Amino acid sequence: MIYPQSIMKLIEEFSKLPGIGSKTAQRLSFHVLGMEKSAVNRLAEAIIEAKEKTNYCTVCGNLTDKDPCMICSNKSRTPEVICVVEDARDVIAMERTREFPGLYHVLQGAISPLSGIGPDDIKIKELVTRMTPEVKEVILATNPNVEGEATAMYISRLLKPLGIKVTRIAHGIPVGGDLEYTDEVTITRALEGRREL
Amino acid sequence: MIYPQSIMKLIEEFSKLPGIGSKTAQRLSFHVLGMEKSAVNRLAEAIIEAKEKTNYCTVCGNLTDKDPCMICSNKSRTPEVICVVEDARDVIAMERTREFPGLYHVLQGAISPLSGIGPDDIKIKELVTRMTPEVKEVILATNPNVEGEATAMYISRLLKPLGIKVTRIAHGIPVGGDLEYTDEVTITRALEGRREL
Repeated sequence: MIYPQSIMKLIEEFSKLPGIGSKTAQRLSFHVLGMEKSAVNRLAEAIIEAKEKTNYCTVCGNLTDKDPCMICSNKSRTPEVICVVEDARDVIAMERTREFPGLYHVLQGAISPLSGIGPDDIKIKELVTRMTPEVKEVILATNPNVEGEATAMYISRLLKPLGIKVTRIAHGIPVGGDLEYTDEVTITRALEGRREL
Repeated sequence: MIYPQSIMKLIEEFSKLPGIGSKTAQRLSFHVLGMEKSAVNRLAEAIIEAKEKTNYCTVCGNLTDKDPCMICSNKSRTPEVICVVEDARDVIAMERTREFPGLYHVLQGAISPLSGIGPDDIKIKELVTRMTPEVKEVILATNPNVEGEATAMYISRLLKPLGIKVTRIAHGIPVGGDLEYTDEVTITRALEGRREL
């Protein structure tokens, strides 16, 4: 005895999503069957529409539904500082601080020789073409892991000869974090980055 | 700064699903954006199709894509025993045992005065109309909680005057369970239901 074919198919599709195992997929599928038909259609349409309408900004590589994106086309933001991140989600994380007045550049990945991702596979060329005399500083905000560090290093070597100030975001103990539970690499970085009070 | 409209909408739709919070909804949405277009369409179609093609069996109330369902139309199953469950998922759970040779009746809920669900809101009338002379036993397999017990009690009082044998599945320590960690109500039930070896 198995579920009817159409339910099996839905369970299979749901289980392909990240973090959704077969039990959760079953629960989601049965929930969908119990939903109003209009709600089911809304869900399906939202999925198709998000994929269809969302594209990458041709300037910064951020996810957007218009081109150039909201940030690139915002005249009140300074084009003098460009913050380089790996992913569109990182832009959102940066924007939540409401502290960064400049523009972004989304690499759409990080250099990772192990996964066969080289400098040409991410949007580094596009970053270099954005290096007009207007740009005073490039902040590298790639993730503090092996791939992110390698990417930051690569970009920094590429841009420094152009006479642009290249900075890296600070690593250290997160605010609200506990020294006791912080790993030694982070503490080493926090010590290296200490500042006079 | 927010996500583009179409992404926001998808995140919103995903967060309506059970067990999916806003963080998971974001992760799923970004995963969908990164999927192949054909895979995205398959997912959306599976959702719509499951809802459209799946209906309730007019005989037993089970979820099915043909009517009567696979179990009701299976001639090798005995119509003498009907197992009453709350939900289509319970049918699957029972079928996994491969031990039950009879038919099912899916109530599509349980009596719950607190949620305003009375006997007329679930498929009890439909169960009574199935009580042909052919039926020798009705097994009540509603869940062992307040609603399930109330529903079992109600159905038992309704069917006993018709001269039908009404039984309730046993409650006790689950196989592989630990006496130490079993709650007192379950142990009481296990004691009540003890059998001579």
